[in-house]
Amino acid sequence: MIGIGPGSPDYLSKRAHNILSTVDAVAGYTTYIDLIRPLIKDKHILSTGMTREIERVQAAIDIALSGKSCAIVSSGDPGIYAMAGLAFEICKRKEINIVTPCSRERALREKATLCVEIIPGIPALCSGASLLGAPLNHDFAVISLSDLLTPWDLIERRIQAAAKADFVIVLYNPKSKRRQSHLETAQKIILKYRDKNTPVGIVVSAMRKGQDVRIIPLKNLHTATVNMQTTVFIGSSASFEYLDFMITPRGYGVKYSGDIL
Amino acid sequence: MIGIGPGSPDYLSKRAHNILSTVDAVAGYTTYIDLIRPLIKDKHILSTGMTREIERVQAAIDIALSGKSCAIVSSGDPGIYAMAGLAFEICKRKEINIVTPCSRERALREKATLCVEIIPGIPALCSGASLLGAPLNHDFAVISLSDLLTPWDLIERRIQAAAKADFVIVLYNPKSKRRQSHLETAQKIILKYRDKNTPVGIVVSAMRKGQDVRIIPLKNLHTATVNMQTTVFIGSSASFEYLDFMITPRGYGVKYSGDIL
Repeated sequence: MIGIGPGSPDYLSKRAHNILSTVDAVAGYTTYIDLIRPLIKDKHILSTGMTREIERVQAAIDIALSGKSCAIVSSGDPGIYAMAGLAFEICKRKEINIVTPCSRERALREKATLCVEIIPGIPALCSGASLLGAPLNHDFAVISLSDLLTPWDLIERRIQAAAKADFVIVLYNPKSKRRQSHLETAQKIILKYRDKNTPVGIVVSAMRKGQDVRIIPLKNLHTATVNMQTTVFIGSSASFEYLDFMITPRGYGVKYSGDIL
Repeated sequence: MIGIGPGSPDYLSKRAHNILSTVDAVAGYTTYIDLIRPLIKDKHILSTGMTREIERVQAAIDIALSGKSCAIVSSGDPGIYAMAGLAFEICKRKEINIVTPCSRERALREKATLCVEIIPGIPALCSGASLLGAPLNHDFAVISLSDLLTPWDLIERRIQAAAKADFVIVLYNPKSKRRQSHLETAQKIILKYRDKNTPVGIVVSAMRKGQDVRIIPLKNLHTATVNMQTTVFIGSSASFEYLDFMITPRGYGVKYSGDIL
């Protein structure tokens, strides 16, 4: 299970590159497969649309069980709102005996049927933050606004808890065709606890075609154009703007004021 | 400002590698410099101990202002409890006119004095999670237990809010020589809201010498051996163990039970 990072091959790790070069097959959402197409020209490719992810991961597991190696590709990191969790859930449901690459000896002893390696990638929360400045330089909470698999009342409860405890808040999946109002609802909840001019960073398609980076005040968040390729960074009470950058201090300014800073 | 990821060159991005090869100077904490030493043999190296970070970043900025290029190196991602925030704070305090690489034309027009690029890296929350399985596959909160620059009562408030709203919780800096009791205090707060057998993943030195990965129940967290190279992952109410893995489901099991899963 491979994280390809934001998408540009410049941000792929050597380990991800090497494994993609050596596997027999590659499975992934069509958009992500296209991002790494030059690296996997000669591979058996299982690419399907966004909603057919269970089918795709099951097919990848079947290939691996048949004795071939198969990479499951996610953009960003495979463990953050991506394919790794689903693959483990399917293995558990089917009682597949999986082991990590670190436990090969034990695998042979225990007749494991599948060896799984997760190759981490640069997640959207880091690629997006890097284009804004340093918005995540203190405690933060990461919340997906997709209620496809999570009850909306739990999502609201998490937004409120994170806002009240002054976390920087990173929102994944801020909007889809089906859901137009979630981001505005989130904004209203956060405005109860945070100043209306709190900086909000909006990053679309970081390090990809169509990249767009903006910083707006929280009071204007409902007017921002966002899509499913957008990550939203809502500052804490300490976050500030300097020139084109959004920064959350770690506290040096307070601690060392009068001293070096 | 470069994130080198967990430390092994296998997880360095191509962009980080290229920039490290071309800069005139490299600044960083001695331990991180040592991880990339083979890549930067011929460079001017500014390496200092952990507590002299302000001095180090100021020296790096001075080199850049003198017309030479200088990389500031962080392990993981440079924007998560690392050097990027501090560098921006210093630039603001000194009123240095900084621009991003995307705005070179504007930079010339505005006579900018410093061009800053943040190169994201794989953060410890992703490298650690990849060794555990998929613990972060749903909403999570990231909290540092270091009270060197943050009041402890704010840290406690954040732990409580995250525990109450059922976030997976990632703890950075769980312990140091000076602070022995913080992790146990965090455990007590979280136990008020979460089952005593909630899985907790403990990862020491991911992808580095001395790597250690364990999963223990929350009730035993106070007995775990942790240090400043440790990241702690506390499961949500939905997290579970399967064989040697810790997994937080995204909800597929619930949604599709009776169907494919």
